[in-house]
Amino acid sequence: MTGVLLTDLYELTMLQAYYAQRMNGTAVFECFVRKLPAHRNFLVAAGLEQVLDYLAELSFSADELDWLRQSARFRPEFVDSLEDLRFTGDVDALPEGTVFFADEPMLRITAPLREAQLVESRLMNLLHYETLVASKAARCVLAAPNTLLVDFGLRRAHGAEAGLLSARASYLAGFSGTATVEAGRRFGIPIYGTMAHAYVQAHAEEAVAFEHFAKTQPENAVLLIDTYDTERAAHKVVALASQLAAQGITIKGVRIDSGDLGEHARRVRSILDAGGLTAVTIFASGNLDEYRLHELVRSHAPIDGFGIGTRMNTSADAPYLDCAYKLEEYEGRPRRKRSEGKATWPGRKQVYRRYDRAGELAGDVLALAGEQASGTPLLQPVVRGGRPSTSRPTLAAMRERAKAELASLPGPLRSLDDAQPYAVEVAASLRALAMQLDAQN
Amino acid sequence: MTGVLLTDLYELTMLQAYYAQRMNGTAVFECFVRKLPAHRNFLVAAGLEQVLDYLAELSFSADELDWLRQSARFRPEFVDSLEDLRFTGDVDALPEGTVFFADEPMLRITAPLREAQLVESRLMNLLHYETLVASKAARCVLAAPNTLLVDFGLRRAHGAEAGLLSARASYLAGFSGTATVEAGRRFGIPIYGTMAHAYVQAHAEEAVAFEHFAKTQPENAVLLIDTYDTERAAHKVVALASQLAAQGITIKGVRIDSGDLGEHARRVRSILDAGGLTAVTIFASGNLDEYRLHELVRSHAPIDGFGIGTRMNTSADAPYLDCAYKLEEYEGRPRRKRSEGKATWPGRKQVYRRYDRAGELAGDVLALAGEQASGTPLLQPVVRGGRPSTSRPTLAAMRERAKAELASLPGPLRSLDDAQPYAVEVAASLRALAMQLDAQN
Repeated sequence: MTGVLLTDLYELTMLQAYYAQRMNGTAVFECFVRKLPAHRNFLVAAGLEQVLDYLAELSFSADELDWLRQSARFRPEFVDSLEDLRFTGDVDALPEGTVFFADEPMLRITAPLREAQLVESRLMNLLHYETLVASKAARCVLAAPNTLLVDFGLRRAHGAEAGLLSARASYLAGFSGTATVEAGRRFGIPIYGTMAHAYVQAHAEEAVAFEHFAKTQPENAVLLIDTYDTERAAHKVVALASQLAAQGITIKGVRIDSGDLGEHARRVRSILDAGGLTAVTIFASGNLDEYRLHELVRSHAPIDGFGIGTRMNTSADAPYLDCAYKLEEYEGRPRRKRSEGKATWPGRKQVYRRYDRAGELAGDVLALAGEQASGTPLLQPVVRGGRPSTSRPTLAAMRERAKAELASLPGPLRSLDDAQPYAVEVAASLRALAMQLDAQN
Repeated sequence: MTGVLLTDLYELTMLQAYYAQRMNGTAVFECFVRKLPAHRNFLVAAGLEQVLDYLAELSFSADELDWLRQSARFRPEFVDSLEDLRFTGDVDALPEGTVFFADEPMLRITAPLREAQLVESRLMNLLHYETLVASKAARCVLAAPNTLLVDFGLRRAHGAEAGLLSARASYLAGFSGTATVEAGRRFGIPIYGTMAHAYVQAHAEEAVAFEHFAKTQPENAVLLIDTYDTERAAHKVVALASQLAAQGITIKGVRIDSGDLGEHARRVRSILDAGGLTAVTIFASGNLDEYRLHELVRSHAPIDGFGIGTRMNTSADAPYLDCAYKLEEYEGRPRRKRSEGKATWPGRKQVYRRYDRAGELAGDVLALAGEQASGTPLLQPVVRGGRPSTSRPTLAAMRERAKAELASLPGPLRSLDDAQPYAVEVAASLRALAMQLDAQN
């Protein structure tokens, strides 16, 4: 699915033109977000590992080259030239889990022009989606801290890869795990599951469905109790639990998936507690996102864990980021796009971050990569000459980083509402360079 | 990417419980949308072909079985039982391209319980996304009929598969093609491309960039003219065209990607026409969707084609559908879920559609599959006993069907605004069955 032809046609058309003109000098592209979506006070960088895999594997297969030849869109000698194409350049990037803001490059590619151009579409496709989801999931984590949060969204994620990568991105951002089995297998993410309404419906009696299910999972059964009547089902759980206890079987929890989740949880908690089932947990799901989590947590609903699906996986209130991958320098000369509303800051850039005494973020400076600026530089070298220049962090380490980053956010930025934007200062050097380039054209 | 473990853990947990109880009778599941999103007056069915491929290939590989064994979550004899699992059931579905409405099943699976249960997550993942995109793209087609519309959205689609399947779904709904090369290769969709800002920026002079590009595409070059100053660039195109004409090179078109697209197009059209370039087309892109298309078309902006990206591929104003896959019958007995706000109509159902004399849709009836009802039955048999029971239509045929379906929509439903909902009547037989089941529980 991730072959090199998963790209926009214009990348190949431009490569052919570069080839015809023998243009292949060193190009510097940066990927950044122009503007944060409404209700986003920060973003969380994610997707770098998938980008690095893509770059490491970049090459045209014999089948792909044949198809290009047969398409009759390209000159034969150009297609031949693609046979040896590999990624031989450098990558500098924000480590996954890093909090960042508008205009700050999250990744820089420095490579021969044709390589740097070709990778645009897929590189953005990966970085954009994982960052989108990690940023949304981080808001859920802030809304319900120290709570079991499980990605439930495969079915309405946009395709297979979105299902897998949203499991990864949400775990990175602090979720506890995912329901998606393949994400568990591929990324080592903890997997969780309960039962579906169909399981209850396939049985003539709800109580029998519960009993059967509990017997096959003697310690782990989470019973779905809203298929017919939530509170009546909770009473059935109480009756069943004492019956099963004699056989050494305990029920782990119940799940509520419809109605007023907080209200049902309160009633169910009372029923379970009155029945002696104080250890049985309540898990809730159904159209949840950070806003609903916040309401439920604020109202002290007795819910021990949440399944968060569609709205997280699709980032439903902001389903895309206004991101770009732009040429900032070619053959040593800075470049600047000036299209209306889409002008870019030229040159190779670095983000310098300052912290206050409490360790909270205290302002960033967007400056030229070479210059001295106060603060911690955020973009780090990860690939040099097409090869890894550092060992890759584990997903667990990325998750730790994201946790620390969220902890370092100033209070207002942690809010689900729009806050005063975080201060990202553009260095005088960068402003001067932009003015100088504008005067030239 | 589409292995059988791309599923929710609970499917496997339930399968284990069904296995333990020797439950594997015939189950009937239906997939439908509970409620249309805001601003949607209809949906366009898509994704069936990918579902059929998935079902045809359904099986556990040795690696997958080993992983399940090592996960220590399942009993060994259950994992062994999965080795022979294949899809052996029946599928009835709306042909791709069919217009449908809330509560109408778009697909029915009739199969042994374990098979029908297992396929839930991925089946929905495919049908949901393609239907979402086809429905959004159809609105673009209605907003700008008989206009070149090209999918430009790979970079911000949610992952690789979303990029590919949105190219397919939008083409099915009436788009002219896509920029995504692999979608062209895989599905035979026409591919289109222009140039990026980076191409212009990599050259010291915009005019030189235009010249180089035109020379490598002597008949097909579409020049991006908004990198610095759109109207100045249009004048450069005029100067270049006369110079290239002597070499037998013609410029096909220009692309505008920023600012007020209608206003720029008018000015650029004047410049091109005054320069004798009446045959050079104007192509526009940049944050377009059906609403902006409608404005541009209504204001008679002289634009010959549009690149539609992010907002179409993510269905940005409604990034998911409230779809479900529910058990409606088990072992010959109809089933009904009654969860608050999520109750379903029980039993095997069929949609009967009536047309008026002009061939326009005149009302649907949701009835039991067996009963006699007036109108054309929409769900068609496509798989029997695990094997195709009809030849698959081509993508071109699906596209023709979608075109005819859109043409048969009553005027108000074709509007981008909310219309009076289309009449979907629930047959008396179905209401009676639901009441009867409710009385039993």
